[in-house]
Amino acid sequence: MRGRFISIEGGEAVGKSTQIRLLADWVRAQGREVTLTREPGGTESAEAIRKLLLEGGADRWNARSEALLFAAARADHVARLIRPAVDAGAWVISDRFLDSSRAYQGVAGGLGDEAILALHRFGSEGFLPCCTILLELPSEEAARRAMARDGANSDRIGGRDADYHARVVAAFHVFAEAEPDRFRIIDASGTSDQVHDRIVAALQPLMA
Amino acid sequence: MRGRFISIEGGEAVGKSTQIRLLADWVRAQGREVTLTREPGGTESAEAIRKLLLEGGADRWNARSEALLFAAARADHVARLIRPAVDAGAWVISDRFLDSSRAYQGVAGGLGDEAILALHRFGSEGFLPCCTILLELPSEEAARRAMARDGANSDRIGGRDADYHARVVAAFHVFAEAEPDRFRIIDASGTSDQVHDRIVAALQPLMA
Ligand SMILES: Nc1ncnc2c1ncn2[C@@H]1O[C@H](COP(=O)(O)OP(=O)(O)OP(=O)(O)O)[C@@H](O)[C@H]1O
Ligand SMILES: Nc1ncnc2c1ncn2[C@@H]1O[C@H](COP(=O)(O)OP(=O)(O)OP(=O)(O)O)[C@@H](O)[C@H]1O
Ligand SMILES: [Mg+2]
Ligand SMILES: [Mg+2]
Repeated sequence: MRGRFISIEGGEAVGKSTQIRLLADWVRAQGREVTLTREPGGTESAEAIRKLLLEGGADRWNARSEALLFAAARADHVARLIRPAVDAGAWVISDRFLDSSRAYQGVAGGLGDEAILALHRFGSEGFLPCCTILLELPSEEAARRAMARDGANSDRIGGRDADYHARVVAAFHVFAEAEPDRFRIIDASGTSDQVHDRIVAALQPLMA
Repeated sequence: MRGRFISIEGGEAVGKSTQIRLLADWVRAQGREVTLTREPGGTESAEAIRKLLLEGGADRWNARSEALLFAAARADHVARLIRPAVDAGAWVISDRFLDSSRAYQGVAGGLGDEAILALHRFGSEGFLPCCTILLELPSEEAARRAMARDGANSDRIGGRDADYHARVVAAFHVFAEAEPDRFRIIDASGTSDQVHDRIVAALQPLMA
C-alpha cells in the first residue's frame, strides 16, 4: 500500500515541531510506519545546505541565492527520502516544505510565488504533499511562545523583522485558501493536546 | 570608465588556469585593473557552495540539485563580485562561468540548455560576459595534460567518464558557434606562450 506525504507549515513558533511529534505517535498507533523529517534538510546532503542557510550574518545570502539553495536541498530531500519512503508505504511527515519557500522567499522576500514554483518544478518535478497542515496563531501568541523558548536568540531567517513575518503568515493563508483540497487550516491556539485533536480530526479521512 | 567581464571556458585541463594568469599580466600591462576569479566560487559564500559541489562521492548530488547549487553560487558571485568590480572599471576574468553549467549540467548531464539558462535568468538576471574565450584541444592532448598534472586524481566532476567529457567539449563548440559575437574560439595546442598570443590577438579589439 502506498504511503502519504504530509507537510506542516506556519510561521515561527506556532507549534509545528511540537505537533509533528504528537502526530507521529498517533499515526504509528494506527499501525502505519512513520518517517519524520524537516526542511531545510532531511537528508545528509540537504542538511549540509541547511547549515549554509541558517548560519552566518543576515546578509550572508542574497534572496535569489537563498531561494536556489532551498530548491537544491528540497530536490535532494524529495528524490532520496520522501519519494522512496512514500513508495515503500510510509507516512512521511515533514516539518516545513515547499510552502515555506513560497511564503518566506517568494512572497515576504519579494521574489514572487511563480518563481519559487518554477524552481520547484525544475528541482523536484513539482512534487507536492497530499495534505498540508497550516497552523495559525495570532502573532502576539506566537511571539510569546518564541520568547519563552528562545529568549532573544533566533537563526538567520527567524531573526527577520516583524513586518517580514507578518507577510509570511498572510501568504500561508492565501495559499491555503487557493488550494483547499490540499490544505487544512488548523487553529494553533490552546493547549498542545487541543491542537493535536484538531489535526487528528482533519486527517482522519486520510486513514481510509 | 566601465570595465569588462571575460570568461574562459573549455574542457578539463585544456589550460584555462594557465592562460588566465598570463592574460591577467597582459591586461595589467595595458594599464587596466584586473580582478581574477573562478567558478564555482569567487566570493566567500560561493566558495562554501564550491566545497559542497566538488567534495564527496560521485552520487553526493543528483543532477538537479547540482545545477541549483551552481546557480546559487553564481548569483552570489555576480551580485557581490563581478558586477561591482566591472562597474568600478576593472577587467574581471573568470575561470569558468555560465557556459560551464550549460555544457556540464545542461547538455552532458541531460537537464537541457534551456533549464540552465532559466536558472541563470532567475539567479543572476541573465548577466553575461562581454567576451568568452573557449579553449579547444584534442581530447588526447587534454588527457595527457591532465595526467601529467594530477595522475589519477580528480574531483567529483572531473572524474566523470570520457563520454561525459566528450559531450561537454562538443556542447561548448555548439554554444560558441551560436553566439559568435560573444565567443572567441582559441586553439589551445602548442606552448602556453603560443596560446597566449592567440588570446591577445582575439582580445585586442576590446582594448579600444
Ligand atoms: N499549544 C501550545 N501552547 C503553548 N506553548 C506551546 C504550544 N505548542 C508549542 N508550544 C511551545 O511553543 C514553543 C514553540 O513551539 P515549536 O517549537 O513546536 O514551534 P515551531 O512552529 O516548530 O517553531 P519554529 O518555527 O521555530 O520551528 C515551544 O517552546 C513549545 O514548547
Ligand atoms: N600549452 C600547454 N602545453 C602543455 N602543457 C600545458 C599547457 N598549458 C597548460 N599546461 C599544463 O596542463 C595542465 C592543465 O593546465 P591548467 O591547469 O591550466 O588547465 P585547466 O583548463 O585550468 O584545467 P582544469 O579544467 O582542471 O581547471 C597543467 O599541468 C599545466 O601546467
Ligand atoms: Mg520547529
Ligand atoms: Mg583550472
